[in-house]
Amino acid sequence: MKIPMTKLTVVSESLLREELLKMMRQAGAKGFTITQADGEGSRGVRATEWEGPNTRIETIVSPSVADRILDQLANRYFEDYAVIAWMSDVTVWRAKKFQD
Amino acid sequence: MKIPMTKLTVVSESLLREELLKMMRQAGAKGFTITQADGEGSRGVRATEWEGPNTRIETIVSPSVADRILDQLANRYFEDYAVIAWMSDVTVWRAKKFQD
Amino acid sequence: MKIPMTKLTVVSESLLREELLKMMRQAGAKGFTITQADGEGSRGVRATEWEGPNTRIETIVSPSVADRILDQLANRYFEDYAVIAWMSDVTVWRAKKFQD
Repeated sequence: MKIPMTKLTVVSESLLREELLKMMRQAGAKGFTITQADGEGSRGVRATEWEGPNTRIETIVSPSVADRILDQLANRYFEDYAVIAWMSDVTVWRAKKFQD
Repeated sequence: MKIPMTKLTVVSESLLREELLKMMRQAGAKGFTITQADGEGSRGVRATEWEGPNTRIETIVSPSVADRILDQLANRYFEDYAVIAWMSDVTVWRAKKFQD
Repeated sequence: MKIPMTKLTVVSESLLREELLKMMRQAGAKGFTITQADGEGSRGVRATEWEGPNTRIETIVSPSVADRILDQLANRYFEDYAVIAWMSDVTVWRAKKFQD
C-alpha cells in the first residue's frame, strides 16, 4: 500500500483551472486537490499576470505522467500564462486511485 | 533546531474533520494546518464521494507517529470514506512543537 | 529547465503576513503562493496564539535564501509569535522566476 509517487503542484490564474484540469486528466492524472491561493511577485504588488485569485492544483501521479504534464505546461502555458509548477517525492497510501 | 521529520497530508470530506483531528491527536500529532480544498476525480465531475467541500489537514510528525496515523486511516477510513493521504520528508524549525 | 530547489512553507497568524512577505523578499524570495489556513494545537481547542485565521506562505528559493529566511524567522519571530516553518526539496519548472 505504500508506494513512492510524484506530487505535482501547479499554480495558475483561476481562469485556466478547467483547461488545466482537462489537460492533466488527458495526460493521465486521476484525482486533484484544489485550493484557492493568492500569488504575489517580487515587487510587493501583484503583477498583472497574477491579478485575481489563483488556483493551486495538486495531483499525485507516476513520474511518467508528471513528465507528460510538464511537457504540456512547458509547450503551451509557460510562455504566455502565469503558470508555475513544481514536483516532489511523496509516499502514498490508497495508491490505487492515483495509479496510471 | 533543524530536524528531519515527516509531513503527513490527509485530504477528506469535511464531515470527517473533527474525527480525523481527534484520531491524529491521539496518535501523537500535536499541531495542524488546515485548509479548505476541492477534490475532483478523473471523470471531470465530482464523484459522489467528493461532493461538498473537502478538508486538507497537514501535520508534521515523527515517522512513528505517521505510521500510527496511517494504520488508523487504513483500518478505519480508506475502505468507506473519501480519504487520501500522502507523506513527504521535510526539515522543520521550531521542532519542539511537533516532537513526540 | 528542471532545477532542484527548496520549497519553504511558513504558517503564521495572518497579522504577520505583510511583514513576513517583506522580510522574505528582502532575503531574496521572488514569488509567493499564499493560502488561508486554520491552525489547531494539540488540545483540541485553538491556542491563543492560533486565534483568528492563519496565512500559509509558500516560496521556492535556493538553499541559501532559505537559510537566510530561516535565520530571520528564528531570530525575530519564533520566540514571540505563532510562526512555524518547514522546507522540502522540490524540482521546479520555469525556474527563472525563482532564482536568486
